[in-house]
Amino acid sequence: MNYTDFFRSELDALRDSGNYRNFAELERHCGAFPSATCHNGPGEVTIWCSNDYLGMGQHPLVLDAMHAALDRTGAGAGGTRNISGTTHDHVRLEAELADLHGKEAALLFTSGYVSNWAALGTLGARIPGLTILSDALNHASMIEGIRHSKAARVIWKHNDQADLEAKLACLPANAPKLIAFESVYSMDGDIAPIAEICDLADRYNAMTYLDEVHAVGLYGPRGGGVAEREGVMDRLTVIEGTLGKAFGVMGGYIAASTELCDFVRSFASGFIFTTALPPAVAAGAAASIRHLKASGAEREAQQARVAQVRARLDQIGLPHIDNPSHIIPVMVGDPVKCKFISDTLLRDYGIYIQPINYPTVPKWTERLRITPSPVHSDADVAQLVAALEKLWTQCQLARRPLAAQ
Amino acid sequence: MNYTDFFRSELDALRDSGNYRNFAELERHCGAFPSATCHNGPGEVTIWCSNDYLGMGQHPLVLDAMHAALDRTGAGAGGTRNISGTTHDHVRLEAELADLHGKEAALLFTSGYVSNWAALGTLGARIPGLTILSDALNHASMIEGIRHSKAARVIWKHNDQADLEAKLACLPANAPKLIAFESVYSMDGDIAPIAEICDLADRYNAMTYLDEVHAVGLYGPRGGGVAEREGVMDRLTVIEGTLGKAFGVMGGYIAASTELCDFVRSFASGFIFTTALPPAVAAGAAASIRHLKASGAEREAQQARVAQVRARLDQIGLPHIDNPSHIIPVMVGDPVKCKFISDTLLRDYGIYIQPINYPTVPKWTERLRITPSPVHSDADVAQLVAALEKLWTQCQLARRPLAAQ
Ligand SMILES: Cc1ncc(COP(=O)(O)O)c(C=O)c1O
Ligand SMILES: Cc1ncc(COP(=O)(O)O)c(C=O)c1O
Repeated sequence: MNYTDFFRSELDALRDSGNYRNFAELERHCGAFPSATCHNGPGEVTIWCSNDYLGMGQHPLVLDAMHAALDRTGAGAGGTRNISGTTHDHVRLEAELADLHGKEAALLFTSGYVSNWAALGTLGARIPGLTILSDALNHASMIEGIRHSKAARVIWKHNDQADLEAKLACLPANAPKLIAFESVYSMDGDIAPIAEICDLADRYNAMTYLDEVHAVGLYGPRGGGVAEREGVMDRLTVIEGTLGKAFGVMGGYIAASTELCDFVRSFASGFIFTTALPPAVAAGAAASIRHLKASGAEREAQQARVAQVRARLDQIGLPHIDNPSHIIPVMVGDPVKCKFISDTLLRDYGIYIQPINYPTVPKWTERLRITPSPVHSDADVAQLVAALEKLWTQCQLARRPLAAQ
Repeated sequence: MNYTDFFRSELDALRDSGNYRNFAELERHCGAFPSATCHNGPGEVTIWCSNDYLGMGQHPLVLDAMHAALDRTGAGAGGTRNISGTTHDHVRLEAELADLHGKEAALLFTSGYVSNWAALGTLGARIPGLTILSDALNHASMIEGIRHSKAARVIWKHNDQADLEAKLACLPANAPKLIAFESVYSMDGDIAPIAEICDLADRYNAMTYLDEVHAVGLYGPRGGGVAEREGVMDRLTVIEGTLGKAFGVMGGYIAASTELCDFVRSFASGFIFTTALPPAVAAGAAASIRHLKASGAEREAQQARVAQVRARLDQIGLPHIDNPSHIIPVMVGDPVKCKFISDTLLRDYGIYIQPINYPTVPKWTERLRITPSPVHSDADVAQLVAALEKLWTQCQLARRPLAAQ
């Protein structure tokens, strides 16, 4: 086999299918986010698709904590958690996270991806006879973890309690079970019926595993996520989250009972055999969490901005998924036009919104996924909506009936 | 099933077997490393088991680069590489890494663990009919990646070319093959016969995948690893490394051809579906690599310190594995005594060396893995050797015949 030819032909096939990805090379300007320089594009741009949902990545408290930790303790952890890599900053952050979710304990991972992969992988592999009941639209990291565990897997229809119940009822009453799902699904922005799923878990003696990656920091009086807002955090066995989106830094975690966290800590390969997060990253994340526990201002400003963008899109009849979250998927429904609009927004308007195409979303549901944040201004919104309006006309895309004014 | 009882009983079994791990909670003092405060131990300690092998985690150039990047661009990347998370700092670091290894391209991951898991997982899953020939002592992250790929796997005897050749010869001549191995094996400190393995790869048309996690920064005129030192970098298909050990920060990567990197970039779930490294982490790692390309002083000082510790251990007859690397495994050969010595070193002498017990190493090869670095002083070495000498006597452990003086 000629390996290079093989790689080349696979990449060509990807290009032919329109799924080859080019990355925009950005340089954010601290203090001026959502502005950035696009080094392989038109220069100055406004980012409208970041998962730094609240702009915490440039919050002075976060940056101060990171600067201070660098000065105090240096750059890296220098080891795995077991071999010299557990620092005071990790332990403090784990306490902060346990408190955020009202759990006994929390366990840090190098990313949200690794936390899902390692935690679900370990629970699935180590609990004899466990069946994992997985929502059909769960994130790749959960799917890979479940696959890796080799546990029995049952997929239930997305956000469909009736289907989940039917599937639970088919399993032996005594068999161990784990229901794995997300709160906010990031591509459609819809939200799971968490309390109802917890009811089913109680009825069938199942554990629950909730990915709140797109919700932590954003919902609930202290930013504990949708489960906090709905007063059901204590009903969940495991809450999983990221430090890389609303908290603005990097890392992932689970929050759960002391025993469960200790179990995963003791057996998860993806936790054990890897260098710990830099203490400065942990310190920055802890500062961000602490701030968002006390301050609702960022959440309120974000929600106001989201409502404003939605209303303006409605005024010009642009189709977007009506959902109860902060994510606005503007539906293009055509891969070529979706990419064209994204390219044109970037080149002619300095607006950066990555197109979301198959396989991330189903074919003919291609979209621009817009994430308004407290750091976007009225002028940013006006510019965005005007540009979309023009391009919608240019591409002859369908509009919704105009909202009654 | 009562889940908590299950976790508890598994943890109890782990405790009974002596394999339950307690983490030392450290706080390094920037500028004073290897000193640290052990918050759940005796207070001030000297770390002798860090993988920040050269002390780059406190190098002013690394810290300056991180401070500057924080000020310039903020805390986190704010997205996956595809969705707003590719920054100028990532692109520059990838160029730095490609140059370090003399390859066309490099691809960053959130850790060395993820780079192995994702790259081997993707190559194994996506190259039809690929057989991965894996050294018997490969790291957990490589094993998990290979397992995940579901590719055919053939395990060859550790560092044994003859066995590798026998196994290669059994496979169809035309079948695609990948030989996966490490340069420095971190528990014994032995080094693979890289050139000989490349000869076999040529003969049998196999790709090679070399994990240089414990070698990058440390070997070769520019810190490119053992393959650089031996002038064989161009013969390897993939060189994998970490930014979290000798480079002192965090992250992982592969360096390879443009096509191979682009292939992994395009298909690896563990690369695609996760928030990118913080730009400041990338900037710190790039500064560290740049410095170690130009400066051999840290490598020389480390090697001198390693030689000094080895010589002093020989003088008092303490058994350690004679290997050609910078890792000094002092053999205790008993799990209880190994933990006792480690605990006593910490409590009575302020010396922190994590014991390495089964399952990380085989039973009855329990050891203290010592990693001397340029930041250890003569006084540190004298204190370490005196403490070990006393404890060796106290535990009545065997000594080697004294080296002829
Ligand atoms: C639902 C969900 N879970 C987990 C992750 C992974 O989190 P992280 O980016 O911290 O790896 C993501 C996205 O990145 C996600 O969308
Ligand atoms: C041989 C080897 N490969 C890969 C890794 C993982 O690298 P990282 O710590 O960057 O995840 C390690 C240790 O952590 C290792 O020892």
